[in-house]
Amino acid sequence: MSQRPSHEGEKLENGELSLIRYLRRRTRGVAKPTALGIGDDCALIRPRAGQELAVTTDLTVCGRHFRLDWHTPESVGHRALARGLSDLAAMGARPVAAFLSLGLPREFANAGSGGWGSSWVGRFLDGLLALAELHETPLAGGDVSETPVPLADIVLMGSVPRGKAMLRSTARAGDLLYVTGTLGGGAASLPHFDRLSRGGANGLSAARVPKGLAPLLARHLYPQPRIAQGLVLRGKGLASAAMDMSDGLSSDLAHICEESGVAAEVEAALLPVHPGASVEYALHGGDDYELLFTGRPGVRLPKAIGGVAITRIGRIVAKRRGRAAVSVITGRGKEPLLAQGWEHFK
Amino acid sequence: MSQRPSHEGEKLENGELSLIRYLRRRTRGVAKPTALGIGDDCALIRPRAGQELAVTTDLTVCGRHFRLDWHTPESVGHRALARGLSDLAAMGARPVAAFLSLGLPREFANAGSGGWGSSWVGRFLDGLLALAELHETPLAGGDVSETPVPLADIVLMGSVPRGKAMLRSTARAGDLLYVTGTLGGGAASLPHFDRLSRGGANGLSAARVPKGLAPLLARHLYPQPRIAQGLVLRGKGLASAAMDMSDGLSSDLAHICEESGVAAEVEAALLPVHPGASVEYALHGGDDYELLFTGRPGVRLPKAIGGVAITRIGRIVAKRRGRAAVSVITGRGKEPLLAQGWEHFK
Repeated sequence: MSQRPSHEGEKLENGELSLIRYLRRRTRGVAKPTALGIGDDCALIRPRAGQELAVTTDLTVCGRHFRLDWHTPESVGHRALARGLSDLAAMGARPVAAFLSLGLPREFANAGSGGWGSSWVGRFLDGLLALAELHETPLAGGDVSETPVPLADIVLMGSVPRGKAMLRSTARAGDLLYVTGTLGGGAASLPHFDRLSRGGANGLSAARVPKGLAPLLARHLYPQPRIAQGLVLRGKGLASAAMDMSDGLSSDLAHICEESGVAAEVEAALLPVHPGASVEYALHGGDDYELLFTGRPGVRLPKAIGGVAITRIGRIVAKRRGRAAVSVITGRGKEPLLAQGWEHFK
Repeated sequence: MSQRPSHEGEKLENGELSLIRYLRRRTRGVAKPTALGIGDDCALIRPRAGQELAVTTDLTVCGRHFRLDWHTPESVGHRALARGLSDLAAMGARPVAAFLSLGLPREFANAGSGGWGSSWVGRFLDGLLALAELHETPLAGGDVSETPVPLADIVLMGSVPRGKAMLRSTARAGDLLYVTGTLGGGAASLPHFDRLSRGGANGLSAARVPKGLAPLLARHLYPQPRIAQGLVLRGKGLASAAMDMSDGLSSDLAHICEESGVAAEVEAALLPVHPGASVEYALHGGDDYELLFTGRPGVRLPKAIGGVAITRIGRIVAKRRGRAAVSVITGRGKEPLLAQGWEHFK
C-alpha cells in the first residue's frame, strides 16, 4: 500500500498555518516508508490485489464524547482514533491509513510559550500518534478549521481480503456468543471521574486519582482496539458474525440480532465483568471497545488471542414473534434485556 | 466498485435517531446498484484492479465556510461536497464514494412540524445529494453528533489508474499555464451577499436578489467541480501538473511552484475574468473551484472540454534565487504576485 498524505491548510490564519506545519511535521514520522510525500489535493492509497477497503468515520466532539476536565489531551487523541480502529477490528481489517479533520477554538490554535509540543494539540497528537504507531497506521491527510469547541473527525481505512470481512448480518440460530476481554470497566469509571474531577482543561490530574483506581480509569481513557484479535478471528474463520462494542452489550447485541434476523440469550453468570464494575455495567455500559462475535457451534475458540481472553457469554437463538430479541438469563430466570445505550458527558 | 454503507447512530437522543433514519433513507437512493446495504461497522469499497484511490477530507464549519444568513441550506450541502469533488477533479480521479460526518446543534436535530424534508438538514441533503447524483457519487456512510454550530466533514474517495494521478509537483520550466472556466466570480459575489442579506437562517432570499445578479451569486453558491475536465486532461495526458483553485490564483499557483520547484508568470490580459468580477478578484479571489494546470509546450489543448473553456494564462519558468515564485505581467510590466488567500466569513 502507498499513501500520499495531504493537508489543506491554505485557508487559515497565521497561528493556524503554524499548526498545519506542526501537524505535517508530526505526522511525517508515522507514515509508512511507502508514503509518497505531502502537499497534493488528495492522498493516494494503493490497495493490494484481492483486497477491499473497509472505511469508517467517527466524529468526536468536546462535551459530547469527551470533557476537557476529565480527559487528558492524550486520552482524547487516543480515544478518537480508537473508535475507528475498533470498527476495523470488528471487520477483521488491517489498518491502512487514517485521516484527521481537526476543529479547534481560536485559543487552542496557538502554540503558546511552550511551543506546540506541550500545547493541548501537541498532547492530543501524542495520544493519537502513539496508538497509530502501535497499529502501524499512517496519518495520511486531513483538514483543520476553527470551531467553537475542540472536535476531531477521524476516517480509518483498512484492508481485508475481498468478500472476507466479518459482518453483523451473518449470525445464525445455534451459534455461540463470545466477547473479547472484559466488560463494564469503561462505564464503571465514569462516576469516579465525576467525583474526583475539579475542573481544568487538561483532564483529571493523576495526582488526584487513588492508586487502586488508576487501572479502572485507564480502561476508559485508553481503550485498546482489538485489531490483532479481529485479524485472527477473520483469518482463521473462527467468527460467523462480529461487531465492536462501543455502546454497551445490550445495545450492540440488538444490532447483531436485527441485522442477522435472529435473537440472543446472554447468561449473566458468564459475563467477564471488569474488576471494579458490576453485571449492570457489563450489560449496559458502553465504551469498552471489545469485540462481540458469534461462532458456529462446531468451531472451537481459543481461551485467549494475543493475551486477551475470549469468553462465551451466551448463544444465538431463533427469532420469535412477540419475544424480545435479546434476553438475559440470571438467577431469577430469563428476562428481556432492553437496550440501554451509552449516555454521554452531559 | 461496491460499497457497504454504514452509519453510526447508536449514541444519540431520540430526535437524532430519527435524523439517522432520515439520513439512511435519503442516502439509500443515491447508492449505486452495487451497494451492499447499510448497518455494519465499516463501509466496504472494492477498487478495480490497476486503480488506486484518491482520498480527501474537507471540514466545512458554520461561520467559517458558510453563513446561515447568506447560504441557503442547499448551497451549504452543495458546497461541502463540491470541495472534495474538486480535489478529485484536480487529480483526474473518478468519484467512488463520499462519507458525511454531520455536526448539528440540538435545535437543528429535530424534524419540526414540516418533517425532515423541509428542515435545514433536509434541504442541506437536497443540495448535497443533487451534486452527488450528478457525479454518480454514492454516500457510503458517516457519523452524526451534536455540535455547537452546524458543520460537516466530508470524505471523498475517487479512483484513478495506478501511477496516473495528476500531481502538483510535476510542472517544468517551459510548460504553459492554463485554467478551466472563469475566475473571480466566487469572490466578487461576496460584497453583494453582505449588502443584500438581512439575517435569517436559510440564506439570502432569492426575492432580495436583483435579477441580473443571480448568475454571479450562483457562482458562489453552486460551484461546479470540474470532474469531467479532470478526467479528460488526465485520460488524454494533456496536463503535466494540476490542482484545484479554492483559495485564489495567487495562493494556489504558489503551491504548484513550491511543489514543482519552479516559478510562474501570469499575464493579466489573458485572465478569463468572470462577468461582474475584476482582474483583482481573478488574481486573488478564492472559491472558484476551477482547475489550474500546466501543459508541456508541444501539447495542444482544446478550446473547451465539456463546454467549459480552457484558457492559457501564462507560463512556467525556472526558479531564480531572490525572485518571487509567482509574477504577474500587466501594462506596467512584470511584478511579483503575492499570495493573498481567501478570507472567510468573519
